[in-house]
Amino acid sequence: MGGPNAQTATLLMHCPDRPGVVAAVTRFLAGHGANIIDLDQHVDRAEGVFFMRVKWELDGFGLDTAGFGAAFESAIADDFQATWQLHHDARPLRMALFVSKMSHCLYDLLSRWQSGEWRVEIPLIISNHETLRPVAEQFGLPFHCFAITPETKAEQEAREIALLEENGIDLVILARYMQIVSPQLINAFPQRIINIHHSFLPAFAGAKPYHAAHARGVKIIGATSHYVTEDLDAGPIIEQDVTRITHRDSVGELVRKGQDLEKLVLARGVWAHLQRQTLVYRNRTIVFS
Amino acid sequence: MGGPNAQTATLLMHCPDRPGVVAAVTRFLAGHGANIIDLDQHVDRAEGVFFMRVKWELDGFGLDTAGFGAAFESAIADDFQATWQLHHDARPLRMALFVSKMSHCLYDLLSRWQSGEWRVEIPLIISNHETLRPVAEQFGLPFHCFAITPETKAEQEAREIALLEENGIDLVILARYMQIVSPQLINAFPQRIINIHHSFLPAFAGAKPYHAAHARGVKIIGATSHYVTEDLDAGPIIEQDVTRITHRDSVGELVRKGQDLEKLVLARGVWAHLQRQTLVYRNRTIVFS
Amino acid sequence: MGGPNAQTATLLMHCPDRPGVVAAVTRFLAGHGANIIDLDQHVDRAEGVFFMRVKWELDGFGLDTAGFGAAFESAIADDFQATWQLHHDARPLRMALFVSKMSHCLYDLLSRWQSGEWRVEIPLIISNHETLRPVAEQFGLPFHCFAITPETKAEQEAREIALLEENGIDLVILARYMQIVSPQLINAFPQRIINIHHSFLPAFAGAKPYHAAHARGVKIIGATSHYVTEDLDAGPIIEQDVTRITHRDSVGELVRKGQDLEKLVLARGVWAHLQRQTLVYRNRTIVFS
Amino acid sequence: MGGPNAQTATLLMHCPDRPGVVAAVTRFLAGHGANIIDLDQHVDRAEGVFFMRVKWELDGFGLDTAGFGAAFESAIADDFQATWQLHHDARPLRMALFVSKMSHCLYDLLSRWQSGEWRVEIPLIISNHETLRPVAEQFGLPFHCFAITPETKAEQEAREIALLEENGIDLVILARYMQIVSPQLINAFPQRIINIHHSFLPAFAGAKPYHAAHARGVKIIGATSHYVTEDLDAGPIIEQDVTRITHRDSVGELVRKGQDLEKLVLARGVWAHLQRQTLVYRNRTIVFS
Repeated sequence: MGGPNAQTATLLMHCPDRPGVVAAVTRFLAGHGANIIDLDQHVDRAEGVFFMRVKWELDGFGLDTAGFGAAFESAIADDFQATWQLHHDARPLRMALFVSKMSHCLYDLLSRWQSGEWRVEIPLIISNHETLRPVAEQFGLPFHCFAITPETKAEQEAREIALLEENGIDLVILARYMQIVSPQLINAFPQRIINIHHSFLPAFAGAKPYHAAHARGVKIIGATSHYVTEDLDAGPIIEQDVTRITHRDSVGELVRKGQDLEKLVLARGVWAHLQRQTLVYRNRTIVFS
Repeated sequence: MGGPNAQTATLLMHCPDRPGVVAAVTRFLAGHGANIIDLDQHVDRAEGVFFMRVKWELDGFGLDTAGFGAAFESAIADDFQATWQLHHDARPLRMALFVSKMSHCLYDLLSRWQSGEWRVEIPLIISNHETLRPVAEQFGLPFHCFAITPETKAEQEAREIALLEENGIDLVILARYMQIVSPQLINAFPQRIINIHHSFLPAFAGAKPYHAAHARGVKIIGATSHYVTEDLDAGPIIEQDVTRITHRDSVGELVRKGQDLEKLVLARGVWAHLQRQTLVYRNRTIVFS
Repeated sequence: MGGPNAQTATLLMHCPDRPGVVAAVTRFLAGHGANIIDLDQHVDRAEGVFFMRVKWELDGFGLDTAGFGAAFESAIADDFQATWQLHHDARPLRMALFVSKMSHCLYDLLSRWQSGEWRVEIPLIISNHETLRPVAEQFGLPFHCFAITPETKAEQEAREIALLEENGIDLVILARYMQIVSPQLINAFPQRIINIHHSFLPAFAGAKPYHAAHARGVKIIGATSHYVTEDLDAGPIIEQDVTRITHRDSVGELVRKGQDLEKLVLARGVWAHLQRQTLVYRNRTIVFS
Repeated sequence: MGGPNAQTATLLMHCPDRPGVVAAVTRFLAGHGANIIDLDQHVDRAEGVFFMRVKWELDGFGLDTAGFGAAFESAIADDFQATWQLHHDARPLRMALFVSKMSHCLYDLLSRWQSGEWRVEIPLIISNHETLRPVAEQFGLPFHCFAITPETKAEQEAREIALLEENGIDLVILARYMQIVSPQLINAFPQRIINIHHSFLPAFAGAKPYHAAHARGVKIIGATSHYVTEDLDAGPIIEQDVTRITHRDSVGELVRKGQDLEKLVLARGVWAHLQRQTLVYRNRTIVFS
């Protein structure tokens, strides 16, 4: 995102590994006038799968979105059995933020948006509590509160989905949203919901990871940003990082130190998605650099 | 360990937290002529326990080991209900190394010993395979091979314990020893067996952690050195560290990158023990710095 | 800072190293009813200097500030030639933020304040540009702009100092303030001005460190928070951290990745000061943990 | 290196950036029957230079070394003004180790060689002191001692160069060799001498970096592996890493902690070279991953 990328397109694709894919794709793009500015590929030799990300300047490129689809299918995708996505980078993605009571990730994301560090739109903030409404208002953003009980969950989530769709949301960020999201919402945004979990998954999945980390006596704590799937805290990991702790750190200190990690790891995960660097395959991510 | 510490003593103690412990202990030591060169204390407020490590120069100190015990018991330990250990740092610890087929940790430990980086004695190496006998011979060390099958395990371990005791072993290092150690051995060396596990515990306990890490798609891998208890890979953690990986790393690459971590994390854990910096309390370690 | 610390006092002291200091101080405090909750000491053996930080609960403590000074001087400080500071932790520190055009550190500090993560007061923000006035207003804080030219610098800084003094400022944070601060301001707030420099000092001191890092081809970049002294970028370092980069990272990417480091390293440095964990001695800091 | 790579070739190239390079090279390789197993490219947009590393299986590839050169020149290199190197990975590289008195890097490199972790040959060890001869002998390697004084330096280095050439040395490793290497040796092995410097360059270049780091009061120390050029400690950086220190660490502790970093950073730098992942351009390295 950001100015320099505004007139570029990014192709993400994968297919069974076979000699000649890179040559075929680069010849196809060059033939249509693309000036490639980034190409990264990866072969998973154990799985026999080829992955590629290519980014090129649209200036001088001879195909529009519809034209690209038709031409790429017949020239490449059919032959190589490729699965692909094309992104025109000019349009900023539209993100919805889901929060509960803790504000550190919310402030961090809002400041990246408001300062222009990220070229992104945030049409709305959704919460299950009123607590952070003042923060949304301070940044001039609509705040929608949907209180959730076991009885109302299905209905409230249906209203949330409707709201997300009305607002043309591309990406949902669970910024320390303390509710398990149900399959209906997940399936409405497949591989487009990013969560931050406050541990180095798979250690300490579930509730109260800092308490569990303290009880186990670990010497490092971590945070993990991942795409949300129906298996709790088990979706494809985008980014992780850790920080060192000692016996001196109480649970309260773990929470304090961990919050700085959470902000950073969530922001890096979202950034990778915004940059179209991520590709999910069998519950793992390729994160092109 | 090492030259400058040769004429020092280290006291490790813990007791129920109560005002006046530091004052009482430092007054006691000063009264017997100790010049304190390091004092570190920690209060676990959740548990209400006080921990302390004090190190002093023996030159001018008026108590020998037996004298210290009697005097410290009556002046301090009885009153404060303290549990304590005294170590005279002049005597190098005697370590036994347990290995199987992988040599990276063995080479690393032997080079620290042979170069004099660590002031320690290694009277013997024990293995369940013949593979690393040439490395032991190259470094001039006795190598004892005890092949282990389910049927022979109890008997072979009994012979190992006898050998360890004959050699006056203080500390057992499982340097990628690929056998589960039984309670009889653990109980013969309580809090004196250090293992290196090739994951950031508690994630990926048990066998084949690099395969599990690859399958889960984590973005960091780790290693953990810990005291061995009867619960597999669940003993008190001494040290952990991690390294970043990407989707490009095959299981083989994780193994390769992980081995450098294992060497480092095991060495740091052993060093902390040699320096008498570690104190175990309820399955967690205090590691004084 | 924060709730649990509100009724505590912290003593920072250093003196020539001599047996018996810890015993004397802890006996003194215990004698006046202090319940010590944290004690950390350090002996710099090369310099022969003893450093200590002690924190205790005021509940039941028998001395007020004036009483402490007199009693501590006669019982301890005179005898041991100690230099000391006493802090009553109940009073939140008052910080002034100096900024220019970049907002990332400002947002980060303001969100820590507004969310209550830090118990601190921010009476005003000072800048040499109008750029960030909207951010100050959004957070409801006074914003004072002092445009600075070589001709006006002395006069403008004098007005800034007056404003800081009127507002009872304890601590000045240069949150990417792109002006060299003159000795008159430094001397008005000795060891009470914290700067963030966007490199791992002493590498790349001065202007444009990211450009210099890119030109040198380093594989890690860093950030440093330090107390400001008259030597540019050469004051006592409080905290540093680094992040890995590759040949793929343009100067623009270094700036983007570095800004996250700057926020974190500045926040950690300020936090250590707020917690009274820092002690400066001969251009180096002791940062008690 | 290692088994799986034995029947592969690696091409490293760079040229002025121009559309169509990737397509041309991959078409050329595919046309000669190459099965590409790794392709990584990078465009330095500021310099306008294109860099690429391609690795393919030799099984089924129709060109031998001489044939490749002629064909690649006429089909690609002439047209794109490319600078290139081709490496057949079957042949293990031959490394000479230069050491002085410190053994930690030497042990580490020798254990990687002897254990088979690295598929490499070490025909000899060269030193300016006799100190480490026993280590060489223990590993069964020739050890040549060339005492160096200002008067004998030119002559002794000439003998060293002759010895290196007689032994068909591909790569020289300065494993804490405490002598400045003169231009005649550097020019005999351009971009084929790797040094480990015990600081995070460019900070603390030159002698006694741990003393300088301690005096400056930094909170992290580092190590840097780099290609040696005529400018002392200023050659292209291959790898760097850091470790956190505190005020408690004496110069001796920095040395101890730093040695572990040095081993790791040197090994990673050498590994990258062995894997043909490094390409030097204008005093910076591209390290393909």
